[in-house]
Amino acid sequence: MSQSLGVVTPELIHFEKPLQLERGQTLPRYDLMVETYGSLNTNNSNAVLVCHALSGDHHAAGYHESESKKPGWWNHYIGPGKCIDTDRFFVVSLNNLGGCSGSTGPLSINPETGKAYGPAFPEVTVLDWVHAQARLADHLGIHKFAAIVGGSLGGMQALQWSITYPDRLDSAAIIAAAPRLTAQNIAFNEVARQAIMRDPNFFDGNYADHDVIPASGVGLARMVGHITYLSDISMGEKFGRNLPREDRDANGVNFAVEQYLRYQGKQFSGRFDANTYILMTRALDYFDPTLNESIDLSQVLSETRCKFLVLSFTTDWRFSPARSEEIVDALIQAGKPVSYARLESAHGHDAFLIPDETYEGLFKAFMSRVYADLEGAS
Amino acid sequence: MSQSLGVVTPELIHFEKPLQLERGQTLPRYDLMVETYGSLNTNNSNAVLVCHALSGDHHAAGYHESESKKPGWWNHYIGPGKCIDTDRFFVVSLNNLGGCSGSTGPLSINPETGKAYGPAFPEVTVLDWVHAQARLADHLGIHKFAAIVGGSLGGMQALQWSITYPDRLDSAAIIAAAPRLTAQNIAFNEVARQAIMRDPNFFDGNYADHDVIPASGVGLARMVGHITYLSDISMGEKFGRNLPREDRDANGVNFAVEQYLRYQGKQFSGRFDANTYILMTRALDYFDPTLNESIDLSQVLSETRCKFLVLSFTTDWRFSPARSEEIVDALIQAGKPVSYARLESAHGHDAFLIPDETYEGLFKAFMSRVYADLEGAS
Repeated sequence: MSQSLGVVTPELIHFEKPLQLERGQTLPRYDLMVETYGSLNTNNSNAVLVCHALSGDHHAAGYHESESKKPGWWNHYIGPGKCIDTDRFFVVSLNNLGGCSGSTGPLSINPETGKAYGPAFPEVTVLDWVHAQARLADHLGIHKFAAIVGGSLGGMQALQWSITYPDRLDSAAIIAAAPRLTAQNIAFNEVARQAIMRDPNFFDGNYADHDVIPASGVGLARMVGHITYLSDISMGEKFGRNLPREDRDANGVNFAVEQYLRYQGKQFSGRFDANTYILMTRALDYFDPTLNESIDLSQVLSETRCKFLVLSFTTDWRFSPARSEEIVDALIQAGKPVSYARLESAHGHDAFLIPDETYEGLFKAFMSRVYADLEGAS
Repeated sequence: MSQSLGVVTPELIHFEKPLQLERGQTLPRYDLMVETYGSLNTNNSNAVLVCHALSGDHHAAGYHESESKKPGWWNHYIGPGKCIDTDRFFVVSLNNLGGCSGSTGPLSINPETGKAYGPAFPEVTVLDWVHAQARLADHLGIHKFAAIVGGSLGGMQALQWSITYPDRLDSAAIIAAAPRLTAQNIAFNEVARQAIMRDPNFFDGNYADHDVIPASGVGLARMVGHITYLSDISMGEKFGRNLPREDRDANGVNFAVEQYLRYQGKQFSGRFDANTYILMTRALDYFDPTLNESIDLSQVLSETRCKFLVLSFTTDWRFSPARSEEIVDALIQAGKPVSYARLESAHGHDAFLIPDETYEGLFKAFMSRVYADLEGAS
């Protein structure tokens, strides 16, 4: 019987050793905001790393306050008796570097200037996140993860782990991801960035100096993003051509879908930092283990040593099943163990976050094999 | 042998009779900017009406100046010996009401105030355009069009004609269109509108009073639109993950596709009026001959009396082949004559504007039958 983790408490972990970043700069020191669920076993072998997507954070499961209504972003899949079973696994979830939920990022104080980094925060990449996560693992006494899992940009981190630290994970679950972005993917990210940068309250990223936030631009960026997370079908089912709840208002809302998008944009702009949004979309754009096809993906994956689960969703057009299948084909070509399913869903890219019986069944079966392998090894 | 129309000259035609608009308001008088190509035959039966899409205008073919490099938007398909053969047909092309290329629209002087309409320009719909086009036909002495043709929003006008004035056209060519927009289509239009409305130079549409234009917002709106006009494939072929021509510049351009989109946005914002863009996207959103499915599309089409050509393009995801097939299925169900082709193309929605041999062959064959019917009737 699956149940909730209840109230969970994040922890800020400080790292004093400088981190050399892929694109040239160095972070002299940094903090990571981390949540863990479950207990590490005696031989430290049952750890699972959960990697978050573009606008996610360390709060993957449970609740921050007992009266809170909103659980962590993957609460359906993490907890006692759930896919990532916290009775079996020690789950580690963190806010990535450059984030705005407690880890060192544009909102943090730059020790060299005594002011918030803002737009001066160095560019970070998926590889940098993986290195920072490896240091977090060292800190927690975890040499090897039983599994590293993530959806979307989170799946790319799991993929990068399998390449960069092949000896430090037994399994990788890569859900609703892609081996790299297409020109269309980059184009949507660029529109989102431009929406933010063209907001007069952006001030080249120095909005904090002016005591404002570029809420309008961030809201618009989220509206664009949101369309790409949903499917044409799910938007049709949810809104169709329905009118808004109230009659057309002074703001000229004509259809329910417009009202919904504006609301989503507004909510997001109140909680997410603009510089972080720009930085995270850049990290997505840069991600490309093939180095612009200078190396074949199967070649890149030839040194991996973990088992893979790859999942895609039929109506996901941000990272379509064909993109997941590029990863699967390359793994097969490289002779690596991979399970793959193209799951029926109406929910588009967001499907990776949404409860679904078949998805749950496959994910649970994979994680049970991960656990069985652990038990066999101990 | 097909050739160019050479230099063509638009004409402004004035209409003094008030036009009652679908959404309630009335235009007391108005002008339409019109181009015609070829000659009307003695029994006025060889006229073809060309309807433009969202950002199109009356300049469909030929050149405005002999030294001009940029011909009309459908120059490849209109001219002597071309699909819409100006040796055979008298072609009529106009800027629709609400436009910004010479026809009465937000930039025109409101006779009641002596000031430009700006945001006070009444909301217009596809049906209003069709009524205005019918009056233009009356003015030109055309009772019945041999064909009415258009792509995208232009195709919706052709469809509306077949419903509203079934006796005034022999044929309709509906290319890359849809019977109405989906929630996702509306959502993209709403993002574009919001990009404009959130520009601080928009001033609720009264930017002319402040001697500015919301160029940033219009440029951003165009960037969003542009992504939906191209396909993932065509963007991939054109840009892939290539770097921009120059090294990354001060504006933080990292990929060629970003540079391209910004350029497209900037060009567009210099030539297109913001209020018109909002108005045209609203007309797209409103278009729905089924009145939110209160009438079956086949029922709506049961009174049509023309022959139909419907064309779609495989990679068009703005109005996918499935959307064209809704029209085709409804026509078949209503027992109407329809030819349909789902054309292979990598060019997405823009394919309807682009030279392609198969497209050209089908379009030409259809227009030749239109001409043969004319000859047979005379």
